[in-house]
Amino acid sequence: MTFAVTVRDHLMIAHSLRGEVFGPAQRLHGATFVVDAAFRADALDEHGIVVDIGRATDVLREIVGALSYRNLDDEPDLRGVNTTTERLCQIIADRLVTAVRDGRLGDARLSGIAVTLHESHIAWASYEVAM
Amino acid sequence: MTFAVTVRDHLMIAHSLRGEVFGPAQRLHGATFVVDAAFRADALDEHGIVVDIGRATDVLREIVGALSYRNLDDEPDLRGVNTTTERLCQIIADRLVTAVRDGRLGDARLSGIAVTLHESHIAWASYEVAM
Amino acid sequence: MTFAVTVRDHLMIAHSLRGEVFGPAQRLHGATFVVDAAFRADALDEHGIVVDIGRATDVLREIVGALSYRNLDDEPDLRGVNTTTERLCQIIADRLVTAVRDGRLGDARLSGIAVTLHESHIAWASYEVAM
Amino acid sequence: MTFAVTVRDHLMIAHSLRGEVFGPAQRLHGATFVVDAAFRADALDEHGIVVDIGRATDVLREIVGALSYRNLDDEPDLRGVNTTTERLCQIIADRLVTAVRDGRLGDARLSGIAVTLHESHIAWASYEVAM
Amino acid sequence: MTFAVTVRDHLMIAHSLRGEVFGPAQRLHGATFVVDAAFRADALDEHGIVVDIGRATDVLREIVGALSYRNLDDEPDLRGVNTTTERLCQIIADRLVTAVRDGRLGDARLSGIAVTLHESHIAWASYEVAM
Amino acid sequence: MTFAVTVRDHLMIAHSLRGEVFGPAQRLHGATFVVDAAFRADALDEHGIVVDIGRATDVLREIVGALSYRNLDDEPDLRGVNTTTERLCQIIADRLVTAVRDGRLGDARLSGIAVTLHESHIAWASYEVAM
Repeated sequence: MTFAVTVRDHLMIAHSLRGEVFGPAQRLHGATFVVDAAFRADALDEHGIVVDIGRATDVLREIVGALSYRNLDDEPDLRGVNTTTERLCQIIADRLVTAVRDGRLGDARLSGIAVTLHESHIAWASYEVAM
Repeated sequence: MTFAVTVRDHLMIAHSLRGEVFGPAQRLHGATFVVDAAFRADALDEHGIVVDIGRATDVLREIVGALSYRNLDDEPDLRGVNTTTERLCQIIADRLVTAVRDGRLGDARLSGIAVTLHESHIAWASYEVAM
Repeated sequence: MTFAVTVRDHLMIAHSLRGEVFGPAQRLHGATFVVDAAFRADALDEHGIVVDIGRATDVLREIVGALSYRNLDDEPDLRGVNTTTERLCQIIADRLVTAVRDGRLGDARLSGIAVTLHESHIAWASYEVAM
Repeated sequence: MTFAVTVRDHLMIAHSLRGEVFGPAQRLHGATFVVDAAFRADALDEHGIVVDIGRATDVLREIVGALSYRNLDDEPDLRGVNTTTERLCQIIADRLVTAVRDGRLGDARLSGIAVTLHESHIAWASYEVAM
Repeated sequence: MTFAVTVRDHLMIAHSLRGEVFGPAQRLHGATFVVDAAFRADALDEHGIVVDIGRATDVLREIVGALSYRNLDDEPDLRGVNTTTERLCQIIADRLVTAVRDGRLGDARLSGIAVTLHESHIAWASYEVAM
Repeated sequence: MTFAVTVRDHLMIAHSLRGEVFGPAQRLHGATFVVDAAFRADALDEHGIVVDIGRATDVLREIVGALSYRNLDDEPDLRGVNTTTERLCQIIADRLVTAVRDGRLGDARLSGIAVTLHESHIAWASYEVAM
């Protein structure tokens, strides 16, 4: 028995990928990532919610905003990271986990977080972590 | 190894939410909930299906119809319930479970039911229960 | 030859509709309206845009926000108005036209505005006005 | 902790279904199936990916292409098979598993594959298999 | 200044197309067509609507139902017709026009009807006719 | 009375925009543009189509491919162009018009072409040109 609440935001970035496997995506290009952040819990709190959706939206906005309108190849935080869609899911999910642990979502008792990044209408990636 | 079949319907309701955490949603407002009901099974039956999709659609329609075009604050069945998106997922899923147990979907051998309610293009909730 | 830029937002409201034609929607119920506001122009300005998308988003947010999380039956501005999806398209479009005329979008030279309200995954309405 | 990468393609087929449960779908009719193939892994490889998305797309294209623009009732491979949406999910997933085992996706270390077929805007099925 | 109301339904059919231009679609295959029927008017009626959405939905359902779960190659009504997506848009729109003229939508004063058929996530066609 | 056929593709690019109006989008960033190219005609040809959808898809693919996986700031063809979403719609539409005039779509008698670029789930632009 599991509940989840998901909120959607997006970011628009430039980057390049290292490795022959990426073909033309080795060149500097870019992407819009539509981001779905799912917060999971085994039970609802006394208000009947998994998480305060307003707070969840704000925290996601802050994390996504810190990556937005940038060339990820130049971000100090991402030095040496191949910023694939999969990896970005993990990076955003990990930052959400930290925000939860820092009490940014109050005392929500989450069982996990899952982040999906849609890179186009025909491809997306996701990452899911237990808490 | 799991199969699932999902059908979509929707409901349009008025309600208000109790608790400061809900901010302006404490006022009487409303929502369209696009409802996805997923029926899960570990194996297909002799026809090669999880569930008769026609029956599943009818049962979902009936359950959704009983909540539609109403002010949920006035529904006797929901007295004292904070009708958050998460909670409504659970209520609809529980009614689907009852319908399955009552034989409304024939002898479908389901392993679980999951209900997702989309409240907008940027927020949705879900609830999943094993059977 | 026409250009258009569209931005999306949403509102969640309660209301009832007057007239037997509306059947169960005569009862107090509600809706999420996903709102698409399209700004049209015959030519782009010196920056290569129809309208400053940031300003357009802010103006739409303000207009939509003034209707959000409310029971439209109780809104003084809407007294005597049957708040059908079609009519709400017109109301939002008219307020956008006023905002443009008030210079809220700078000196954008628009040829028209179109507003679409999606009330569910299977029904939507729109209204289009020349400027 | 799980990663997934999903790619989308589609196929357009004719078929009929055997069994009274299918009602009018016992007649020869057809469907567009929008196919989502998800590749899952517990960790990313040295390039930061689950799978080479170009290869995954090609393999899915090949499997879907072998079923496309056909009457499934006449396909030798599907003799005696009730080609329900659920069953077609399994058939496509099984062919993807074979392709992975044949090294078609390089040395991707997958934990599972899930295939979803959308038969309309209101119904879809999925099948998930561990590897 | 134009209003429109759109309702969505779908049909699932088998067919083949005649002409080398169609390549593999010359073989018997099939499609799900998600159908959007838009009703246009220059003004709203006394209830504030373009058309009774319940009636519009019923009329569309009836027209779509008469084509559903069939092999269009065998339909007497469509003998000699190449049932391309474009042509099916026109056929459905023409039947809607007839229904309107027969008073099936009451005294709605429509200025036009537009029908869109989505054959997949990457291709659709439409047809628009003035009334 | 107008017919249209639309096909969808996408491109992923890096770019920056010049002008204070663009705020953070003045920095090098990027976008996925989901591209819808609509081909319009007043009548269908002898096969019952607006345009050979296979050819239309190929021509769009070629035009989109020439822009894909690039930093548009460095493209010789786009020197001095502010590559806003609106402007890119026009550039792609103009290239489609040239392809049609060069006979790339056979003798299709088109009345117009419209191109829409979706830059995210909440913003898109379009450009429409008569032929």
